[in-house]
Amino acid sequence: MKPLFRSGLPAAAFLAAAALSPAIAAGESKGRPWTIEDILTVPEVNEIALAHDGKRAIYAVDIADIAAGRPRSHVRTVDVATGRTRTILTVEAAKSLRPIPGTPDWSALLDFGDGLQLYRMDNEGAVRPLIVNPSPVPVGKADMSFPIGGGMRPSRIGVLDYDWSPDGKWLWYSLIKAKPGAGRVRFDDEVSALRNRRRSAIEVEVDYLLRGPDGAAVRIATRPSTDRVATRGGGRIVWQNDEVRFRVEVQDGTLGGKFELWAWDRTKQAISKLASQRDLLSMWILVGPHGGQLATTGVDKKLELVETSSDGRRHSYGPVAFEIGDPRAAGWKMSADGRRVVLGTRGTEDLRYGLAVLERNAVRVIDTGASLTRCGFDGALATAVCVEEGMTIPPRLIHIDLRTGAARRLDSISSRHDAIEPLRVIPRSFVSRDGYRAQGYVVLPRGYREGERYPALVVTHGSDADERFSEPGNQWNYPVQLFAERGYVVLLLNDPSPRQSDELMDAYRAWMRGKGPPDPDTVRQRIWLNGIHSIEDAVKDLSTEGLIDPNRLGIAGYSRGSQMVNVAITNSRLFRAASSGDGGFLEPSGYAGARASYDPVYGGGPLGDNIDHYRRFAPSLNARKICAAVLQQVASASPSQIELFEALRDADVPTQLSYYPGTSPASDETHVFHIPSNRLQAMRENLAWFDYWLLGVRDPDALFAGRVANWDRLANGQRDRCVLTPRQNAQSSSPIPAKIR
Amino acid sequence: MKPLFRSGLPAAAFLAAAALSPAIAAGESKGRPWTIEDILTVPEVNEIALAHDGKRAIYAVDIADIAAGRPRSHVRTVDVATGRTRTILTVEAAKSLRPIPGTPDWSALLDFGDGLQLYRMDNEGAVRPLIVNPSPVPVGKADMSFPIGGGMRPSRIGVLDYDWSPDGKWLWYSLIKAKPGAGRVRFDDEVSALRNRRRSAIEVEVDYLLRGPDGAAVRIATRPSTDRVATRGGGRIVWQNDEVRFRVEVQDGTLGGKFELWAWDRTKQAISKLASQRDLLSMWILVGPHGGQLATTGVDKKLELVETSSDGRRHSYGPVAFEIGDPRAAGWKMSADGRRVVLGTRGTEDLRYGLAVLERNAVRVIDTGASLTRCGFDGALATAVCVEEGMTIPPRLIHIDLRTGAARRLDSISSRHDAIEPLRVIPRSFVSRDGYRAQGYVVLPRGYREGERYPALVVTHGSDADERFSEPGNQWNYPVQLFAERGYVVLLLNDPSPRQSDELMDAYRAWMRGKGPPDPDTVRQRIWLNGIHSIEDAVKDLSTEGLIDPNRLGIAGYSRGSQMVNVAITNSRLFRAASSGDGGFLEPSGYAGARASYDPVYGGGPLGDNIDHYRRFAPSLNARKICAAVLQQVASASPSQIELFEALRDADVPTQLSYYPGTSPASDETHVFHIPSNRLQAMRENLAWFDYWLLGVRDPDALFAGRVANWDRLANGQRDRCVLTPRQNAQSSSPIPAKIR
Repeated sequence: MKPLFRSGLPAAAFLAAAALSPAIAAGESKGRPWTIEDILTVPEVNEIALAHDGKRAIYAVDIADIAAGRPRSHVRTVDVATGRTRTILTVEAAKSLRPIPGTPDWSALLDFGDGLQLYRMDNEGAVRPLIVNPSPVPVGKADMSFPIGGGMRPSRIGVLDYDWSPDGKWLWYSLIKAKPGAGRVRFDDEVSALRNRRRSAIEVEVDYLLRGPDGAAVRIATRPSTDRVATRGGGRIVWQNDEVRFRVEVQDGTLGGKFELWAWDRTKQAISKLASQRDLLSMWILVGPHGGQLATTGVDKKLELVETSSDGRRHSYGPVAFEIGDPRAAGWKMSADGRRVVLGTRGTEDLRYGLAVLERNAVRVIDTGASLTRCGFDGALATAVCVEEGMTIPPRLIHIDLRTGAARRLDSISSRHDAIEPLRVIPRSFVSRDGYRAQGYVVLPRGYREGERYPALVVTHGSDADERFSEPGNQWNYPVQLFAERGYVVLLLNDPSPRQSDELMDAYRAWMRGKGPPDPDTVRQRIWLNGIHSIEDAVKDLSTEGLIDPNRLGIAGYSRGSQMVNVAITNSRLFRAASSGDGGFLEPSGYAGARASYDPVYGGGPLGDNIDHYRRFAPSLNARKICAAVLQQVASASPSQIELFEALRDADVPTQLSYYPGTSPASDETHVFHIPSNRLQAMRENLAWFDYWLLGVRDPDALFAGRVANWDRLANGQRDRCVLTPRQNAQSSSPIPAKIR
Repeated sequence: MKPLFRSGLPAAAFLAAAALSPAIAAGESKGRPWTIEDILTVPEVNEIALAHDGKRAIYAVDIADIAAGRPRSHVRTVDVATGRTRTILTVEAAKSLRPIPGTPDWSALLDFGDGLQLYRMDNEGAVRPLIVNPSPVPVGKADMSFPIGGGMRPSRIGVLDYDWSPDGKWLWYSLIKAKPGAGRVRFDDEVSALRNRRRSAIEVEVDYLLRGPDGAAVRIATRPSTDRVATRGGGRIVWQNDEVRFRVEVQDGTLGGKFELWAWDRTKQAISKLASQRDLLSMWILVGPHGGQLATTGVDKKLELVETSSDGRRHSYGPVAFEIGDPRAAGWKMSADGRRVVLGTRGTEDLRYGLAVLERNAVRVIDTGASLTRCGFDGALATAVCVEEGMTIPPRLIHIDLRTGAARRLDSISSRHDAIEPLRVIPRSFVSRDGYRAQGYVVLPRGYREGERYPALVVTHGSDADERFSEPGNQWNYPVQLFAERGYVVLLLNDPSPRQSDELMDAYRAWMRGKGPPDPDTVRQRIWLNGIHSIEDAVKDLSTEGLIDPNRLGIAGYSRGSQMVNVAITNSRLFRAASSGDGGFLEPSGYAGARASYDPVYGGGPLGDNIDHYRRFAPSLNARKICAAVLQQVASASPSQIELFEALRDADVPTQLSYYPGTSPASDETHVFHIPSNRLQAMRENLAWFDYWLLGVRDPDALFAGRVANWDRLANGQRDRCVLTPRQNAQSSSPIPAKIR
């Protein structure tokens, strides 16, 4: 259905095919262009639920609120028959939306400003508190907070999680509380753990409570902050006869941790330990209709879906074109009789999220032609209401009959984004000189004219270039749509999937495990340098096809993408400008705080026998090879980021390090920025950066007074080995697009 | 008067001489032994003033308050005629005690719990506010605070400084205020400066105000937080005709900063800039009776006191045996007619602080036989009231006639410490194999018996072993007196003074300046390795003399001392146990945050061509050479400290890293600990550590459950290359002293 392009296809064929792409409304031109505020306000739905009878749905959509200076969460109910949607609440945060069994009401963790607490609400939005923790705990990267998870924005949590018994009469819930008594002298490893401390942290513990039909609650366990199941709100509950079963993590000194299954007997009022270790993980993760563990096996295009029982028996569902268990997919639910399972999937060819319905001997794929990223299911597992979206499809709700696959569109989630004239975005895969395939998308500039070459930008972030709409987790602060509006080709390119080859998988496993084999040289080659080959070869293909101007080429990526950017600029001479977002991994000064991640890459620390590994590969130690002007935008001001900045400056590479702060000095911006003003400024900074270094466009009135003048100084001071000056670029033949507001 | 011992003196002569030492009350035995609380509660006087007529004095003494969990400041008035002392106030902090001209009252910056504010008080302690800043600013190493200075404990400041016009009618004062508006995006160097950030910081500015006789105040300047003169409360004022003159620091990108003299005209209500740069520094620092700058010149025992006018003319006061300008000394004051100057001095031979009275052609030294560490002077500069103390002399007040030198003792400052039977402490100097002299003190164990060898401890901290009483800035958390009480010889040993040789001075200057010459090898040799020779040779002398047991030898030091400890254990095999306090300088991971201090030592960073310098010298890279068990007690948990800890552990060196926290996770312990419980625990930890590793004494009930058991594991796991096991030590011939409570 969707053409896969091969390297070397002539431009005419490429663009003819592009016009056929189903995601492109070719010939239509009714909408308006993208604005930067459009990117900022792309809606994000993480919570959706369907009533037991399937007649009403509820979801929460997070949207950046520029005036409020933060994202806000809008809770909406949907009449499934009519599709009518109403916003019933707007709060700081909304989590764990669920129908209350046996009632027409919903429950949810809502933050009205006093932290996440548990509320009951009717379909009109009338709310009353169910469980309120009077001492909510500050969490996130902020002073005197508990640094829960990695990306959570600074906020407060009272109730961490909850679950209703199937009859709705019992309520399990967990409360987080600060542990008093600081001032402890710490020793040895506890001190080493403070090496990268940037803020004060409090200690917490988590109480598990059970409220019975009489309204009285008993505490059934208290878990330490080291129990990640407890603190991440993942204390998922199984109600089995008189037992309440839940998983806990205990400390055994391993990175993966050790888990136990505990059971609280409601009649005996006592706790017991049922089992331990990983075989229990399968109790809630991806269980199949045979009661075993589901997984996809095999390499590349020969994936097979199999279910393995605890006694080792193996049931195959045959070949599939998707992977399962991806947190970006729609999740997992089993029917009451255990005979049917619905699974969220991620397509390996089309990069779409979908659903698969499994019965004992059958697997059926539900495909609506776009991604189903979040779903709520009814009690009978007969219908679902899902969020449907795609590269050029703004998120909307869709009703799905899980038995027939029939789908019916409900309301849009963001009419603002429906009004935008979609850009032309062409799915594309490339095969590199090493024989690895990398998938991605070519975003064509607005008003693209065949035969013209355009400045181009590669944006890369692991595997996040897929069928989602302007996903911040992929494009971060790189305003892809605006670059296209002002005349750039943008190539959204994934890493070559490790799934396509055992060699790549082995290298990734060594990296994850903290040691090889393979040896460090091989790990670096397979995880980074091969990836750089893929980027280079994709760009060369587009250049051969006549689409892009190879002299006006930039690269951008954050996190994993920043690794690729930093390795690309020190190993490739193709790029004239780069933007590297909140990274730093691979620099020597990161070693001490992340030994296990560095050891497989470098063989050990930088000061011992392995220094030559670092000298060959660490970006800061290869600064003199760089031909690009390098912007780092960071939320952490980590030593590694500063090490790279100083090395670039010492090597006369034009460079800037921009640190985006939290809402006050007491808290940090998150890795994926959440503060609207920061996102706006960072996007504008990227526009200005690439316009300056690729197109020679100077905007002295741009955001951040004085920076452009400083770029002039950097341009004059740079080495002339491989960098064109902005002036030379400005004299190239391509029209310089008008600046947008 | 005080014998200076030479290396190699036989033990009998050494001890005979010891008995003659004036600091030792030989034969007397009326007092009680030292307790750990005695060390904790040693009083510290930093503020003292004398009334204009010389009849009344006021001082503030800081004493650790165990119950309160912090030091408290006691303000006391003294009737100079009778010596009668009364405590009139107890507050959180008291600074800048001064008589109010033309009145019998005092003024002071006092912290009653709402930050340092300016008060007026009468001699009985009746207090009323003069200037109160309603929004005092949090300062110190704490969340959302301004990190003023290095060692200030977390507190709040409203009024930073003040000064009365000579007639008492005008009041100049400075207020610190938080600057609103966080959330600024930062770039480049401003981000690099965050590399070692461990806490959130606020930005501040300082207002200078002038209150006239009519009670109205005008703001005469606002200074940024980068003006260290302003923020350190050092805006010292000169009242000259209608002008109020003060110095400001302006930014010129140099480490030393650039200064300007500003003048506020009281009639014109306008500010003008009189002059700039360093020639103005001499306006308030060590001006002599000729109006020039005072300094001592020359090397070692040939010091000469000279005064240099701004036109370069040089006046010599002849040879002296002291240095001037030491912040530990009593300060500087000039008579109203400018013809006489009183200077605080530090003796180069006797290591005592004293006073020198300078007239145009004469210098007269005032010597009371002990140190004069803080003094207040009357209006005529005729008399002074000073704090007098010594190694074995608890602080007491003394009245001094500056014309005759006649001295009269007033009250003791701490009767608690008067009740302690002094230990025998013998001043001593040693000459090393390199020909350098190192000065210090030998503290004999209580009940010392001639002919017996004792376990011994070297305690070192720059030049702080001098005639002060149990000085925390010297002995830190090493309870020297308790070690002596329980049978150790303690050698308090200074670095060889750089003053004794141009070669040493050149090396220190290179270190301070941030670059050589001399070259890094030479700098390391002169500043650290020669110092280690001095320590080794001093210890060998004491061993040759039969005083100490060379097999039971430990070394301890903090800050500069921790450098010497860490270099000693990696370059000397003499020591079996070490305690290294809140250090980390010289470790590779400290480079990025302190380039200028590392460059002269190593030639550059550790990852470039200079790595061999690091490999030869950085303690963590030489861990395998260590023969000592190494305790690190730290207030900062810095990457360097953790780097050393992990290197030692990896090399199977018995080691422990103990991190002492602030009063809550929101603040830090200071470099010189200020929290009484931390000081008590750290002192007890040092006692237990050296008892265990030098004497084989295990106390399983000791502070910090489980640590001694861990030490057993470390002892069993250690390499056997050069370390005696605790058991072997326990079997040595010396009696193991009884543990004290």
